[in-house]
Amino acid sequence: MRNFDINEDPHRRYNPLLNEWVLVSPHRAKRPWQGQNETISTEKLPEYDPTCYLCPGNVRANGVNNPNYESSFVFENDFAAMKQDEIMFEDDIRQTFFKAQPERGISRVVCFSPRHDLTLPEMEVPGIENIIRTWQKEYTDLGNIDYINHVQIFENKGSVMGCSNPHPHGQIWAQSSLPTQVEKTQNNLKSYFTKNNSNLLQDYLQAELKKEERIVIENDHFAALVPFWAIWPYETMIISKRHITKITDFTADEVTAYATILKQLTTKYDNLFSTSFPYSSGIHQAPTDGGKHEEWQFHMHFYPPLLRSATVKKFMVGYEMLGESQRDITPEKSAAILREQSDIHYKNK
Amino acid sequence: MRNFDINEDPHRRYNPLLNEWVLVSPHRAKRPWQGQNETISTEKLPEYDPTCYLCPGNVRANGVNNPNYESSFVFENDFAAMKQDEIMFEDDIRQTFFKAQPERGISRVVCFSPRHDLTLPEMEVPGIENIIRTWQKEYTDLGNIDYINHVQIFENKGSVMGCSNPHPHGQIWAQSSLPTQVEKTQNNLKSYFTKNNSNLLQDYLQAELKKEERIVIENDHFAALVPFWAIWPYETMIISKRHITKITDFTADEVTAYATILKQLTTKYDNLFSTSFPYSSGIHQAPTDGGKHEEWQFHMHFYPPLLRSATVKKFMVGYEMLGESQRDITPEKSAAILREQSDIHYKNK
Ligand SMILES: O=P(O)(O)O[C@H]1O[C@H](CO)[C@@H](O)[C@H](O)[C@H]1O
Ligand SMILES: O=P(O)(O)O[C@H]1O[C@H](CO)[C@@H](O)[C@H](O)[C@H]1O
Repeated sequence: MRNFDINEDPHRRYNPLLNEWVLVSPHRAKRPWQGQNETISTEKLPEYDPTCYLCPGNVRANGVNNPNYESSFVFENDFAAMKQDEIMFEDDIRQTFFKAQPERGISRVVCFSPRHDLTLPEMEVPGIENIIRTWQKEYTDLGNIDYINHVQIFENKGSVMGCSNPHPHGQIWAQSSLPTQVEKTQNNLKSYFTKNNSNLLQDYLQAELKKEERIVIENDHFAALVPFWAIWPYETMIISKRHITKITDFTADEVTAYATILKQLTTKYDNLFSTSFPYSSGIHQAPTDGGKHEEWQFHMHFYPPLLRSATVKKFMVGYEMLGESQRDITPEKSAAILREQSDIHYKNK
Repeated sequence: MRNFDINEDPHRRYNPLLNEWVLVSPHRAKRPWQGQNETISTEKLPEYDPTCYLCPGNVRANGVNNPNYESSFVFENDFAAMKQDEIMFEDDIRQTFFKAQPERGISRVVCFSPRHDLTLPEMEVPGIENIIRTWQKEYTDLGNIDYINHVQIFENKGSVMGCSNPHPHGQIWAQSSLPTQVEKTQNNLKSYFTKNNSNLLQDYLQAELKKEERIVIENDHFAALVPFWAIWPYETMIISKRHITKITDFTADEVTAYATILKQLTTKYDNLFSTSFPYSSGIHQAPTDGGKHEEWQFHMHFYPPLLRSATVKKFMVGYEMLGESQRDITPEKSAAILREQSDIHYKNK
């Protein structure tokens, strides 16, 4: 009987944020691939596209004209998943199988800049700082609405992640309930806080900074790392070093440091396969329900699907949907590969 | 203030199997789509493909020849996600952040028939019965191995679901631990059983059979329905009417009824968009850990990604990954649309 070698042997890892496991199969990275190849657009985008409904001055689906905006620009989603209407509803608490409740919410789109062709890694730090200040403003404004208890800031980047317009933009879905993944995370953060009287993600970050092997980037105020329990091949998480529960608590220095690490991380991503790297990303932070939420620690998840090249992604399908998430390359290997990538964007070399 | 209308108003529904919610946005189905289109192969496949590593008589990646099999054929996956080796390992129970444990398991591939071109809906009922008997044998054989406590039977169909060989086949991943999704399901089934002294899925099926609106197909022994809490646009579940915890408990009649409903459901799926309908499917049933598991009820999930046509799928991305699953069309509407589909395959019309 051999001793367990985490770099070679199939194993499961535990995710304390979600109380879930992931199956890791390090030896499986050599599997040949004859399946689907993603199409990637190598077309150079124009700075302004007259047919784009996000570019300044253009007309949107609802007939409204965008202003001639000069930095970031926010508008209400024309096809929002939630509505603001207050609905009359009596909860049937005896219900087990047909439990439903109306949900109020607001969906907004955040255009990162007027430029149709500039993704995050291609923007300058001040431009990214501007996006962060927009996120702060939206978190405050939406969070102040009485029935809004959670503000989800996210970005779907690339057509493989369901993005239907290449003009760089993110979204904000704000709503009355805590979404499932957030509620689970909060429950786990809370029980850790109650038990240890300290913050799970702060303690985790300290442990990772000591070990170093999964850290991708570190600056004075933030670290970007591949979580020990990452499910996507190049999944990362940005965590603030200071105990900060929400984006509006950042100092000016922290805004700059956050913009800088965002630029560096997404540049490394693009350099990995010399492509505009697709991902879904999003911020997890304290809900806006008026609570203190010391259990929370500001962090941002990046879930990128690519596995082997610009065209071969990881499929989270049969076993993963019915059983549990599975990965081939180890998080330590992914972190080392990302660390090695240059901070200068491949297009500028 | 309007009264809540579940067919029109945005709402959340509760999934008692997973203790999770799904956001339903009925009004959003009219959203225009300018995003990614899936490529579908309309190429007619040959009955036998000399370059296919699953066809009878051909050589596989590891150099072994497939036998000249005549019905279904099972072999060990050449690139298994788990290994059978017993690994020495001491659990560090003080570990919170770096919890890992070796996992033993066996992965097998089940070719549905020698025919390279026959998917489930195109096979005859006796051929499908044969696949079910193969699943029974594998559940028994693998389950009898002392360290195997769970046998996951599943199929990834179509390149959009990560399937890399069009020769119709499924997989079986058997392992020592209960995978995350199965463990969650079991916990919820168990607490319902303890509380009500009856089986959650049996009670749910009775309630659905009374309501009728989400039932797609019903025969003497099984029903196929769109769960009240379905997340995928045309997600369905096949449930056995009798309280059966595992596939090996089926009578001969039940095997026939199961094969029949499988053929009907997958035929309706193909007819929906006149395409070989992609999905991941899989069986959830009692684990093979030696327990009695009265809380379990045999059921099979179908998770198909297509939303509007043969080429436009639902993306479970940013909001869904960070917040919770979201759907546009209601489960009631999906069930009605599936019910309307013919039981005769569009290729045979
Ligand atoms: O085993 P296969 O068919 O090569 O691989 C497919 O199914 C597996 C199990 O769902 C997934 O982990 C892979 O991502 C997918 O491509
Ligand atoms: O709102 P969009 O960009 O049209 O849509 C995209 O993001 C949404 C939120 O993650 C998803 O529900 C959609 O499936 C996806 O296509």
